[in-house]
Amino acid sequence: AAVQKMLRDARNGKGTGRENVVSRLMSHPVRAVPVAFLMVIIVGTGLLMLPAARTDGGAEGFMPAAFTSVSAVCVTGLITVDTATFWTPLGQGIILGLIQVGGFGIMTLATLLALLVRKSIGLRGQLVAQSETHTLNLGDVRAVLLRVARIMLAFEAATALVLTLRFWSAYEQNPATALWHGTFHAISAFNNAGFSLYSDNLIGFAEDPWIITPICLAIIGGGLGFPVIIQLTRGEVAPKDWSIHLRLTIYGTLLLLAAGTALFAAFEWNRNETLGPLSLTGKILGSFAGSVFPRTAGFNSIDYGAASPETLMVTNILMFIGGGSAGTAGGIKITTFLVLGFAIWNEVRGRDQVTIAHRSISSSSQRQALSVALLGIAAVIAGTMLLLILTDYSLEKVLFEAISAFATVGMSTGITYNLPPAAEWVLMALMFTGRIGTVAVASALALTAHPRLFRLPEERPIIG
Amino acid sequence: AAVQKMLRDARNGKGTGRENVVSRLMSHPVRAVPVAFLMVIIVGTGLLMLPAARTDGGAEGFMPAAFTSVSAVCVTGLITVDTATFWTPLGQGIILGLIQVGGFGIMTLATLLALLVRKSIGLRGQLVAQSETHTLNLGDVRAVLLRVARIMLAFEAATALVLTLRFWSAYEQNPATALWHGTFHAISAFNNAGFSLYSDNLIGFAEDPWIITPICLAIIGGGLGFPVIIQLTRGEVAPKDWSIHLRLTIYGTLLLLAAGTALFAAFEWNRNETLGPLSLTGKILGSFAGSVFPRTAGFNSIDYGAASPETLMVTNILMFIGGGSAGTAGGIKITTFLVLGFAIWNEVRGRDQVTIAHRSISSSSQRQALSVALLGIAAVIAGTMLLLILTDYSLEKVLFEAISAFATVGMSTGITYNLPPAAEWVLMALMFTGRIGTVAVASALALTAHPRLFRLPEERPIIG
Ligand SMILES: [K+]
Ligand SMILES: [K+]
Repeated sequence: AAVQKMLRDARNGKGTGRENVVSRLMSHPVRAVPVAFLMVIIVGTGLLMLPAARTDGGAEGFMPAAFTSVSAVCVTGLITVDTATFWTPLGQGIILGLIQVGGFGIMTLATLLALLVRKSIGLRGQLVAQSETHTLNLGDVRAVLLRVARIMLAFEAATALVLTLRFWSAYEQNPATALWHGTFHAISAFNNAGFSLYSDNLIGFAEDPWIITPICLAIIGGGLGFPVIIQLTRGEVAPKDWSIHLRLTIYGTLLLLAAGTALFAAFEWNRNETLGPLSLTGKILGSFAGSVFPRTAGFNSIDYGAASPETLMVTNILMFIGGGSAGTAGGIKITTFLVLGFAIWNEVRGRDQVTIAHRSISSSSQRQALSVALLGIAAVIAGTMLLLILTDYSLEKVLFEAISAFATVGMSTGITYNLPPAAEWVLMALMFTGRIGTVAVASALALTAHPRLFRLPEERPIIG
Repeated sequence: AAVQKMLRDARNGKGTGRENVVSRLMSHPVRAVPVAFLMVIIVGTGLLMLPAARTDGGAEGFMPAAFTSVSAVCVTGLITVDTATFWTPLGQGIILGLIQVGGFGIMTLATLLALLVRKSIGLRGQLVAQSETHTLNLGDVRAVLLRVARIMLAFEAATALVLTLRFWSAYEQNPATALWHGTFHAISAFNNAGFSLYSDNLIGFAEDPWIITPICLAIIGGGLGFPVIIQLTRGEVAPKDWSIHLRLTIYGTLLLLAAGTALFAAFEWNRNETLGPLSLTGKILGSFAGSVFPRTAGFNSIDYGAASPETLMVTNILMFIGGGSAGTAGGIKITTFLVLGFAIWNEVRGRDQVTIAHRSISSSSQRQALSVALLGIAAVIAGTMLLLILTDYSLEKVLFEAISAFATVGMSTGITYNLPPAAEWVLMALMFTGRIGTVAVASALALTAHPRLFRLPEERPIIG
């Protein structure tokens, strides 16, 4: 309903002007996004308070329900209670539902906002390059919802099938359990949620390519983002005609996967705490997973509490960058990162235009990328400061936790289980900000830009 | 000579075209800066190799000389050997000379580069606002050199006088020792160098306002930067007519000092390891010094190895931001930081111009600020990664050390003394990059910009 309201408002312009607080909040399409997510989180918290959902019968009260609801809806995967033992199958089913709603929500809303930005910019009379109108020529909103749903279900079903067969054939699970575990981990993977039904997450499957590989593929698929999947699956466009968005996302993903795998292998290959004891297959799988999981699925097949500081640092960087726009991945997004990289590269070469593959990147896109990245850095620094004040953990662990929450990754060095409530609220705020904030800020920036009619005299303070 | 060559080239245009490697390197004014600094560092290393300069008679060989020379010329203050005991008075005198040359060099060269940038932009036909031509209307280059020298000496002499009287009257030093210590610490302070003749740096004076206050004032004075000092001392301009550069630097400095003092006090006031045992005067002085020294003097009146993680975090931020442009302070500079802050603020308000006090900031200034800040972040991350790989220290200590080196601060949690040679080279590279790189990159960006004559079609990848 919130979505339909938002879309109606988007069609009608700036809202209906009624005085009802909720409808006023809803009246701007960008504002609708946080409100809609907040409502789902509240409903989720209520459901997870049900005694039937919890093996403790509700004894631990509000906090585990609230934290888990935020973590599931924001598809993060940070947990203060063990998913495998704290929740009953009903509770696990509720979590799965929240993940699916959260992932579907962010994917459709981000896509629709991107569509709105494009239309609004078109209306403001700016020229839109020919190749661009192709990028998101999706027909209407209903089509977006249906397509997203169809793609999600197809990906999830395929992944679930492989995982179910494997759980059934190699791990002596009965068909019902195998189907449940296969479905849960498939949905958790495609939505980049990182929740697992195993207390040690995926560490038990570290050497099994039939579990790790399909999960990695689902993660990468969900993390590319809907606009990219649509363009790829339509199959009309030859690589040389790819839009800048598609190029940046695909090549950026390949680059980060290759670099992440190489560095993870370099730092962990022989360490006894992590990859050392594994078979060659396990080492290769673990290194690959070490570059896939941080962007930003949040599963883990090694113990990150035992990872080397340099691995944590590389993981921090991968987590912060995150995945593709308008997908289930978090972080500041690959496009944001690469646009800034190209902006600096072009600046160093003394050009005043940012060009990628014979297209220039609009200066408003550059400013949005700058804002998203620096606000992200500010959020992580603020969260880290608060966690340092509220706990006694080292900077290493606290920074990792803050980035993991902000980028909705869900990895942890293990400190999430032992935080005071105030620190849990800091993480919840980071998850919500990271999940909704980056999308909403970027869209709001693009939608509310109103060029001034006169220009003030310029000054050039000395920089650097 | 290098300076004169540079200035001649700047006057004559792009250089003389001779094939001599050195003269070719020198032919571009920006390139002359790193070369000139490198030469001073090499000469300094040679002098510090002299057996007479060292109490060990030269036994420890090359590394202490090279590291100390880089640290002194880059006015950083990181040390691998104790200045008080490793060097003879001759060695300490050489260090002081390197500090003075390094500080004078960076101050004049950065000022001249800023002047060149302005002229070159004027030549390219862009309008320069009226208030701006006032900012740096210094006559000619000789005038810059003389004025910088006069201002430095005045500041240093005044500081040295107060310190000498205090060392003589309150610490039972004989007049010659008091004069030597007063002069050394005055020069070290104004140049933001952080070298001290005491093994525990300034910890022994933590409660003495007659030592800490003049040192803090000299640090702030040197850190404001020459263009700001000139504008302030000319006294012609009423605050309402201040240039943007002056406003940003002055108000930014006040803001960072106030915030730094408050946070340092909040985190350390009662901790036994730092401010706890001190008198009220000592606590206030210590808190103030805790916000002055990181920007970017690098003295310490508390043991940063015992500071709380949240204090280290705040200090990291202050160090990275640094001081004013074209002064002796390091970091990315206040203007860079504030221009980015205003860029985001204006972006959030939906404006496509960055305005400060009814002036707009040119988009090329914004792009330079972005490049300087993000290249700085990249340098710190790369340095941190290398130190993590090369040593066994925690992220907390290693990140602090990397930022301290990059921002030419010189504070340490104490690990500098125990690094392997490879890690020392990483720190030397960071110091050199931070000292020369930010200035050179920013100037080079401004000088080499050549607008393209045609514009490519624009695309807008989805951001965030
Ligand atoms: K996640
Ligand atoms: K320093």
